[in-house]
Amino acid sequence: MIVTETKIRVYYQDTDKMGVVYYGNYARYYEIGRTEMIREMGFTYKQLEEYKVLLPARSLKINYFKSAYYDDLLTVRTIVETIPKVKFPIKTEIYNEKGELINSGETVLAFYSAITNKPVAAPKFFIDEMLRIFQNEQFQTAPKLF
Amino acid sequence: MIVTETKIRVYYQDTDKMGVVYYGNYARYYEIGRTEMIREMGFTYKQLEEYKVLLPARSLKINYFKSAYYDDLLTVRTIVETIPKVKFPIKTEIYNEKGELINSGETVLAFYSAITNKPVAAPKFFIDEMLRIFQNEQFQTAPKLF
Amino acid sequence: MIVTETKIRVYYQDTDKMGVVYYGNYARYYEIGRTEMIREMGFTYKQLEEYKVLLPARSLKINYFKSAYYDDLLTVRTIVETIPKVKFPIKTEIYNEKGELINSGETVLAFYSAITNKPVAAPKFFIDEMLRIFQNEQFQTAPKLF
Amino acid sequence: MIVTETKIRVYYQDTDKMGVVYYGNYARYYEIGRTEMIREMGFTYKQLEEYKVLLPARSLKINYFKSAYYDDLLTVRTIVETIPKVKFPIKTEIYNEKGELINSGETVLAFYSAITNKPVAAPKFFIDEMLRIFQNEQFQTAPKLF
Repeated sequence: MIVTETKIRVYYQDTDKMGVVYYGNYARYYEIGRTEMIREMGFTYKQLEEYKVLLPARSLKINYFKSAYYDDLLTVRTIVETIPKVKFPIKTEIYNEKGELINSGETVLAFYSAITNKPVAAPKFFIDEMLRIFQNEQFQTAPKLF
Repeated sequence: MIVTETKIRVYYQDTDKMGVVYYGNYARYYEIGRTEMIREMGFTYKQLEEYKVLLPARSLKINYFKSAYYDDLLTVRTIVETIPKVKFPIKTEIYNEKGELINSGETVLAFYSAITNKPVAAPKFFIDEMLRIFQNEQFQTAPKLF
Repeated sequence: MIVTETKIRVYYQDTDKMGVVYYGNYARYYEIGRTEMIREMGFTYKQLEEYKVLLPARSLKINYFKSAYYDDLLTVRTIVETIPKVKFPIKTEIYNEKGELINSGETVLAFYSAITNKPVAAPKFFIDEMLRIFQNEQFQTAPKLF
Repeated sequence: MIVTETKIRVYYQDTDKMGVVYYGNYARYYEIGRTEMIREMGFTYKQLEEYKVLLPARSLKINYFKSAYYDDLLTVRTIVETIPKVKFPIKTEIYNEKGELINSGETVLAFYSAITNKPVAAPKFFIDEMLRIFQNEQFQTAPKLF
């Protein structure tokens, strides 16, 4: 298992007239969490693209439990439970500063070749890195939030 | 059943560097479809709010099949299959100009009182209107897209 | 002079917690107006890109006079006063349903070659079309708004 | 003078199909810089709102010099040159990791009463704090970027 955490501040632009974060903006927060997870693993999503590998989304699910408000400092917890093959499912949980679960969901990405524009297996260097990290205690346990 | 359709043009701001509509922006398109469905039913979501009824999202699911591109004129098909009670599930399908299904999904909204900030039953005038429309042939059949 | 008008509905996603359209979203509305102006001229911005011509923004100015609210149907008036050379200044005015000027501004675009990544003169077919339209009465007068 | 700096990472959602940060998204970055400047001054914009003071934008100007790209770590430099009265002009400069100026601009905010919905003078505690900070060397000099 890989678990990483990213802090996201809620700005004016993220809120709507209900005074809370717009429901559609969480997909953006989920992606920030995924991008920073890959960075913490030691490389970047940008590098994947340089290998001509894209990771478009195949599905998205979000269950909303509570609202997030302007100026909240949210914690985005990004969780990978299995080594990806062609599909790459990633779970996300968002917590507010009181440690309450705001929403949780799952995005399923797919490895795509930017050359053939078709699904491909995850690149070997990516899988090797994942395997290495799955054995690294630092990433195996969810950091205690509060 | 209620089925309505809304056209949405893809602008620069909706695309990302992959050259396609950003995966998180479809939640916005889904909401435009829902808003215009309510307008076609003869009132507006804004009026619901004047009745102190809010409709926050409880869940969102999207399955992505194809990409949408800059300047595409998309058709958002919004589908209500049952009269809502406290929860209000709404299906959405997005088609491109060739009639291909780009993605489909479901948003579950919940009726909330803006006064008590708690779930409430759907307002009577809303249910009555829905019942009337469920018997209206115009809304019962999905318009032929292509 | 070329004057065209585009209608834009304000959706939830465009508002912020102040209950009005977020100040930064008007740049998106301005672009929608410009894109539709080019379409009304008889071609599309997408076609310009197929000619390997890009139109990045060099500057943006907006003066805000009034707020726009959820569900407002705004009129975006897009105005070209001179035939462009390398720079392409476009004025924009946004009106609400009462005919009040919400804000006005100017975006200066520049013609860029997608091949050399350097400024270029506006393509001849674009200038010719502009000249033709500058002599077309339909586009010369601002439509009466109200 | 008050000068503060905020780091902003460019994510997928900020880019458009030209592969760069969408021109309209810089207004969002400018606001993040302003919000964090106020936080560094020792209070929050949210607290201003609790005093029933709003700060809507009256004007925005941006001059674009270079593009920002996916995964860039930008530096937003926020600059206040004078103690505000009813209007509150704030300059912003955005730099990339090479220290190049990407764009610069100015937003003029106005102090508004949330009660009367009319312009008001800046609250005394805000001015006092500003005066204190204008005499604080830490804020007087622009941090050396590179």
